[in-house]
Amino acid sequence: MNVVALSGGVGGAKLALGLSHCLDAAELTIVANTADDFTHLGLRICPDLDTVMYTLAEISNRAVGWGQQDETWHCLDALSNLGAESWFRLGDRDLATHLVRSEQLQSGETLSDVTTYLCQRLNIAHRLVPMSDQAVSTQVDTDEGRLSFQHYFVRERCEPQVTGFEFEGVESARPSPGFQTALVDSVDNGDGPIVICPSNPFVSVEPMLRLTGVRETLRVSHRPVIAVSPIVGGEALKGPAAKMMSELGIEQSAASVASYYGDLIDGFVIDTLDAELQASIEQIGIPTIVTNTVMVTLADRIQLAEDVLSFAATLRS
Amino acid sequence: MNVVALSGGVGGAKLALGLSHCLDAAELTIVANTADDFTHLGLRICPDLDTVMYTLAEISNRAVGWGQQDETWHCLDALSNLGAESWFRLGDRDLATHLVRSEQLQSGETLSDVTTYLCQRLNIAHRLVPMSDQAVSTQVDTDEGRLSFQHYFVRERCEPQVTGFEFEGVESARPSPGFQTALVDSVDNGDGPIVICPSNPFVSVEPMLRLTGVRETLRVSHRPVIAVSPIVGGEALKGPAAKMMSELGIEQSAASVASYYGDLIDGFVIDTLDAELQASIEQIGIPTIVTNTVMVTLADRIQLAEDVLSFAATLRS
Repeated sequence: MNVVALSGGVGGAKLALGLSHCLDAAELTIVANTADDFTHLGLRICPDLDTVMYTLAEISNRAVGWGQQDETWHCLDALSNLGAESWFRLGDRDLATHLVRSEQLQSGETLSDVTTYLCQRLNIAHRLVPMSDQAVSTQVDTDEGRLSFQHYFVRERCEPQVTGFEFEGVESARPSPGFQTALVDSVDNGDGPIVICPSNPFVSVEPMLRLTGVRETLRVSHRPVIAVSPIVGGEALKGPAAKMMSELGIEQSAASVASYYGDLIDGFVIDTLDAELQASIEQIGIPTIVTNTVMVTLADRIQLAEDVLSFAATLRS
Repeated sequence: MNVVALSGGVGGAKLALGLSHCLDAAELTIVANTADDFTHLGLRICPDLDTVMYTLAEISNRAVGWGQQDETWHCLDALSNLGAESWFRLGDRDLATHLVRSEQLQSGETLSDVTTYLCQRLNIAHRLVPMSDQAVSTQVDTDEGRLSFQHYFVRERCEPQVTGFEFEGVESARPSPGFQTALVDSVDNGDGPIVICPSNPFVSVEPMLRLTGVRETLRVSHRPVIAVSPIVGGEALKGPAAKMMSELGIEQSAASVASYYGDLIDGFVIDTLDAELQASIEQIGIPTIVTNTVMVTLADRIQLAEDVLSFAATLRS
């Protein structure tokens, strides 16, 4: 099998961890969104990529959904005392990741190289790759003007009203070598599904789909593309996806996510809370299963991964 | 009065603090060696400058002589876990200084600008300036080859045998604006002494003296230049000065320091332990006082500062 999981931050990382428990290292490639990357205090920071990395390494901070467990904030306190921006909560342990990455990027390594290095140091067996080695930067257009993603997401706590998005640099960005390799159909590796994790469709998944050739490759591929809804009962479990839908004039529902992905997907997974939407989603031609998508425990993550893989086995692109 | 103090790290910082208790902010300029600066993990680190800064801010770690008090090492532990170099002990709070400085330098600020900014944030009233805004990099020639200063000093714990020094970049480096202004005789500001703090003559003081025009300015100045011996009883209180003297074939004694400075200085200060050297130093034409130079308490620092200033009042260049 050759399964590809496309992941944003917290929700995606949970399913990615579940998949890593169901599949051998050679059977899975996890691709993380890097359009939320930014440079802060001179450091290159990759929030989604790091959330997936820390989750796979089982050192993530589950209480807040980002950063590392047992984190301390002494550097941040000192930064604040020195008048530096402190809205982005850089933990002392987390800082080490950004320092190592920034230095390696500075010395000419690609983000893929650095990610492979960090994953190896953190004893992560499965392949985690950034979506691209070229910088893509999500800009959020709001009623308060255009904001870079982390300014919108962290500094402004998603409060401004969203009117649209732009992914700076995406036109010239290519999928990373690991993403590209995993995307291509391969008889040797079998033809496992492309899993779109329960991540924000607009700002976590869309940038990955916009990279040069990705949509085209998925369209001609013989592999099923399955998305798991990040919207449950009309709300996002984490993050601003539902709020964004409302502001963009889209109905806040799992069905809207299915419509948003449309032809791209061959199957859709919704939560038991949304069971009544199954028929209407299938009516627009998207096979849909209903299962528990709220991943509280590790067993939940593994169960959802198994459900997705079983569903995939019944589908063809 | 317009007093200029030339300082390396710990010992120099102690006398600088003493002087700051004896003089108004407008009466004192403390110039810190920056030839031990280096770039590490992408951060610009200024160990001597920071030791003086933290000492003046009264947040220095007195137990070890560098870094901040109540420091933690969580980032360093994580760096080590990620396989990064961890021989240079970067504390969590200390890191904030390097992050802010590196970012401001990157954005085009001078080291003088950054230092002024940091001192203001740390509520330091007296002027602390780097010796230069241009990079100077001390290289230590040893029996194990040429080592950059921090590699010699911290990583190799001063163990290699020293054969000489080179100060890369010093030929084209100019004194920082604050150093230059403080050096120039000024009737308005009076004619206070130039105090060479009890710092390593070879690697802390020498780079400052080598900057374009500094020795010439001191030579034609009407202001007395007074050095305090960093060697007490044939040993350095801190650091490798005595070991270096031995390896360079110079007698390990305060008298050797006086000879080393020679014509440059108009007065010399030795410790009571070395009282028997006073006559021989005066015989080579350098007026010398004997006092307690071992600064254990704040009162010791202030007393030595007062002794130096009183001595200066009796001397003319």
